[in-house]
Amino acid sequence: MGEAKTFKSHIDALIIGAGPSGLMAAYWMARCGIKARIIDKRGTKVFTGQADGLRSRTLELFDSMGIQHRILHEGHIAVEVNFWVPGKNGTLIRQGTHTPAKVNESPYHSTLLNQGRIERFILDSIRQHSKLEVERGIIAESLEYDENLEDDPTAYPITVQLRTLDGDEVKLTGSPGNGDGSTTVHNGLDRSNLLVDDWDDLIQRSRSHQAKVEIVKAKYLIGCDGAHSWTRKQLNIPLEGSSTDHIWGVMDIIPITDFPDIRRISTVTNVSGTMLVIPRERHLVRLYVPVHVVDTATGGQFDRSTITLDMIRKRVQNILSPYSFEFRICDWWTAYRVAQRIAPTFSKGSRIFLAGDAVHTHSPKVGLGMNISMQDGFNIGWKIGLVAAGTAHPSILETYNPERHRLAEMLLEFDRHWSKSFTDDKLHAVGTSEKTKSMIQVVEMFEDFADGLKVFYGASLLVWKNDGEDGPAVARRLIPGERFPPAKLRNQAEGRTEWTTRLLESDGRFHVVLLAGDVRVEAQRRRIERLSCFLAGQDSCLTRYASIPGRFHSPILLVTIHSAPWREAEFFQFPDVLRPLDPVMGWDYSRIWCDDVCIWDRECDGQTYAKWAADRTRGAVVVVRPDQYIGWVGELEDADALTRYFDGVLLKK
Amino acid sequence: MGEAKTFKSHIDALIIGAGPSGLMAAYWMARCGIKARIIDKRGTKVFTGQADGLRSRTLELFDSMGIQHRILHEGHIAVEVNFWVPGKNGTLIRQGTHTPAKVNESPYHSTLLNQGRIERFILDSIRQHSKLEVERGIIAESLEYDENLEDDPTAYPITVQLRTLDGDEVKLTGSPGNGDGSTTVHNGLDRSNLLVDDWDDLIQRSRSHQAKVEIVKAKYLIGCDGAHSWTRKQLNIPLEGSSTDHIWGVMDIIPITDFPDIRRISTVTNVSGTMLVIPRERHLVRLYVPVHVVDTATGGQFDRSTITLDMIRKRVQNILSPYSFEFRICDWWTAYRVAQRIAPTFSKGSRIFLAGDAVHTHSPKVGLGMNISMQDGFNIGWKIGLVAAGTAHPSILETYNPERHRLAEMLLEFDRHWSKSFTDDKLHAVGTSEKTKSMIQVVEMFEDFADGLKVFYGASLLVWKNDGEDGPAVARRLIPGERFPPAKLRNQAEGRTEWTTRLLESDGRFHVVLLAGDVRVEAQRRRIERLSCFLAGQDSCLTRYASIPGRFHSPILLVTIHSAPWREAEFFQFPDVLRPLDPVMGWDYSRIWCDDVCIWDRECDGQTYAKWAADRTRGAVVVVRPDQYIGWVGELEDADALTRYFDGVLLKK
Repeated sequence: MGEAKTFKSHIDALIIGAGPSGLMAAYWMARCGIKARIIDKRGTKVFTGQADGLRSRTLELFDSMGIQHRILHEGHIAVEVNFWVPGKNGTLIRQGTHTPAKVNESPYHSTLLNQGRIERFILDSIRQHSKLEVERGIIAESLEYDENLEDDPTAYPITVQLRTLDGDEVKLTGSPGNGDGSTTVHNGLDRSNLLVDDWDDLIQRSRSHQAKVEIVKAKYLIGCDGAHSWTRKQLNIPLEGSSTDHIWGVMDIIPITDFPDIRRISTVTNVSGTMLVIPRERHLVRLYVPVHVVDTATGGQFDRSTITLDMIRKRVQNILSPYSFEFRICDWWTAYRVAQRIAPTFSKGSRIFLAGDAVHTHSPKVGLGMNISMQDGFNIGWKIGLVAAGTAHPSILETYNPERHRLAEMLLEFDRHWSKSFTDDKLHAVGTSEKTKSMIQVVEMFEDFADGLKVFYGASLLVWKNDGEDGPAVARRLIPGERFPPAKLRNQAEGRTEWTTRLLESDGRFHVVLLAGDVRVEAQRRRIERLSCFLAGQDSCLTRYASIPGRFHSPILLVTIHSAPWREAEFFQFPDVLRPLDPVMGWDYSRIWCDDVCIWDRECDGQTYAKWAADRTRGAVVVVRPDQYIGWVGELEDADALTRYFDGVLLKK
Repeated sequence: MGEAKTFKSHIDALIIGAGPSGLMAAYWMARCGIKARIIDKRGTKVFTGQADGLRSRTLELFDSMGIQHRILHEGHIAVEVNFWVPGKNGTLIRQGTHTPAKVNESPYHSTLLNQGRIERFILDSIRQHSKLEVERGIIAESLEYDENLEDDPTAYPITVQLRTLDGDEVKLTGSPGNGDGSTTVHNGLDRSNLLVDDWDDLIQRSRSHQAKVEIVKAKYLIGCDGAHSWTRKQLNIPLEGSSTDHIWGVMDIIPITDFPDIRRISTVTNVSGTMLVIPRERHLVRLYVPVHVVDTATGGQFDRSTITLDMIRKRVQNILSPYSFEFRICDWWTAYRVAQRIAPTFSKGSRIFLAGDAVHTHSPKVGLGMNISMQDGFNIGWKIGLVAAGTAHPSILETYNPERHRLAEMLLEFDRHWSKSFTDDKLHAVGTSEKTKSMIQVVEMFEDFADGLKVFYGASLLVWKNDGEDGPAVARRLIPGERFPPAKLRNQAEGRTEWTTRLLESDGRFHVVLLAGDVRVEAQRRRIERLSCFLAGQDSCLTRYASIPGRFHSPILLVTIHSAPWREAEFFQFPDVLRPLDPVMGWDYSRIWCDDVCIWDRECDGQTYAKWAADRTRGAVVVVRPDQYIGWVGELEDADALTRYFDGVLLKK
């Protein structure tokens, strides 16, 4: 018995937890080329079950990571939401159907796919860009943080002791699946939050035998370790919020039912309750049903063993009646308790950050939780990546907390409203059409937020707000703090088309997007010349900042989008700095794009400037952050302000 | 020395050659689940170079095979063709640009990607559906064919002796790459047709040492072994045609040039000749230049060693002048001789078939050769697959020769015209605008053929022609013998959209597509009921034919496409036979589709019936062959004729 050798290593960043938020953060470590590790207590990745809903904004980010084509190939797209309520004589009727008003503001639409495949795609992308691998079956058992070292960029203020679990320990226990006997069922109770946290148990057990123990010194730590977050507990950060927990059952099954909307997103309300239908890939359908309420204020506990697959099946049969409902194949099922809770802060000092379920919990029924969690990881990931790479000021890390906390609050508010429509009997009593109306209202109220079309990032050194809610006069719909609205453009030299989500690849660089306007107009060409002259200068913002070591000489990439007809412009008529020459790779044809119709691609409709409310003649200059959010917008004459923006964000050479 | 053990095995089909046509044939062996082998004399697959142009029709087939999303992600789409000629004062000018007139008749557009990736995707698809693997480093050394056994479906009339080459033999010799010294260059001369055929050499050499020798008895043989086809020679089938050979140089490079259209498909004519520019993935550009003419009638031989990379570079520099041209990276280069030659027949008896370059050779400059070759393999593949599976009548194999020979003749005619525009000095002399005009004429003349929009399959037991050129009155643009024109549809139960190219998956089955018309009209509903009643009958065409063993109970899949608005129809209102129930998988929601606008998918425009010139109220019935070509079109009352069609094609249980 006793400890094995103790290793000691120094790394830039340690990520605890390889779920969606941890993997998104790890993606950035891979792209920025910093020394990072990502550990997970479980011995294998998730293969099925768990979260499944991908919203537009997440899909846009996936496109910028180069994996969206795989989602499109395997996922199930479902846009409309249907509302079923009791009709006359014990029937159920489809009372309303809701289609998102701004459904075409994104190239991608709500897609359902199991978490296992989603994590697979992110892992493949990480592997493509680095040697970073998830280390599974490893647990953290102590965390020390020396705040005195915070301000020294070369210091390692974080000390974590890691312990490698043995094979048996990483197979966490859960209750056996109980299908109808004829089926093999994977249940997800081992990862359900109904389980008491097993972290301490695992540490105790692994101490009783020979285990590899390791001390890691890190500059940054990201805790992505879920609702029971060990990291959060070490930091004494509480979760605050609702005192009522609802217990929900969920199952992924292949349905045998004559209910017409079993393959469409639907809510079904009946005298015996309300359920949610989510169609999925490979004939699967996910069903959510509320099964119990626990009052935590009175110390309410709940006996998990009372929830079985058969119990969930019967609840669904009751709600769907008079339609028939049965299944032979259950891919996965679980139960979990739901409460809206949030941590008051998502960070500790300037070096430790928490993301995803570790800092906000809520019901999964809005199909948004995994999205917000992934976007948390995406947000902190690039910031730590660039700071650890020695490219960006450490102060950009201060923007994580305000940017993501506000989003998490919105998420909880949405969930409170939405969950209430499922469980509030008062609403039920007011009559079915009122209930449907109220549900549609909730969906509409939070729609832009849910799809990520509205983001709410406040002013900071990364977001230079203009006066008022809109963007500046030259491009009113390009609003600092909001996402860069996707558009499909035509490449000037090549004629091929591409979405900006793919064009502005998430590779760690900021993009300066020059909306060059109408290059047929001589006065405009002179404006472009003047700006280009400035940018080509010795100490311009394109050349003055530290590199991303081993990746890019400059952390800023300049991309031009003009508004003249494609056939009336030529690549070589643009100033050199807009289309640089590499001695080996030749001219960079991917830098000049055009907002014009492409007759063989309907999505490329020449409406980009209009969509952005940008002046078609005079254009604008836009800073797009590495995560595709808008940082700054100005005119072609505002090069000094542009430089000041970057001086506040990036380190000089 | 001497022979090793001789093995003997019995298989359904042997494919010699694992290039594009062989792999497409092998795909069907995998899908139909028959016992097949595919061998290739080379020790490794192609990784780079070779053919690179994918036309619309091929991409549609890839979609039906489930690999098109990978092409879209990696390939370079280029549609317009530009024509450059000398201007005043020694300049070059872009004299014309051609855009295909029917560019939107296919969901997919000309895409450039190297052959290595394309083969990779097909191989992955084969692996997904079977255990069939390409056996490399194996050569055939004798072929016997017993015609007396032809008519016995249980007999193995083909005997082939295979020999496993050793490691050194499979590394074929080629001249070393000669770049500028500073670059690593892969040259493709080892696979160039300038090399004397090395098959006999390989056999001789391998006989001199211990080699594994094996006798294979096969029911069917497909020779896909390229321009020097060993299989064709064993059958004493000649290649006939042109007596003039042109020697061409080709290179895949990353260009450093100020020529504006280096990233667009272009022809460039100058006093020193004409060349072709083909943009590609990963910054590569392929350049074709004619370098020599050989008169084979006078026994003209050609010294291959006179062609070097530097020589090709200089030719390009001369033609592109006054634009600069250089490169540092050459991914691949080769030279080959070109003549339009075709075999008088593509088959021997009813059991041996030849496909691809083995039976038609031509220049690669029309970007079509690999496409026609793959389509050859695709055509013979499903036929042999279904016959060997015991599902289809052997007589369907007779359709291969007439269907593909005619297409190959068209290909050669296109190539003769197109090559002439490059090399004919007379054309050059008539003036540059005449030359451009003539080139555009050639492109326009063969455009529909090249993109596969027009197919020319004649009447046969697989193609029941209607009177005249058009389709029947109920759906004039659904023409037997032509491809099923792709359309994007909305799934009735799910709301998701899909292209018919993906929906009618190439899985070995025939599709009966019921255009159900307007299901809101009662008289039409009665017609649908009557047809459904017939199809649900005991011995209908859905149930009477032999299965595809281990794959599908019925070799026919019924798919319904109605024309009522999506919200005014319900899945369960359609008769049972149109939406069958499986006791485990539930109802099959993938069977009922709708031609209606989808607001979140611009490609799904509700114009499908119009595109097909189908009666929006009364609809039609269409038989789509496993390869997505139309076999039969009729009215809803023509169920007897429908059954007669299938009685001629499929075997009864």
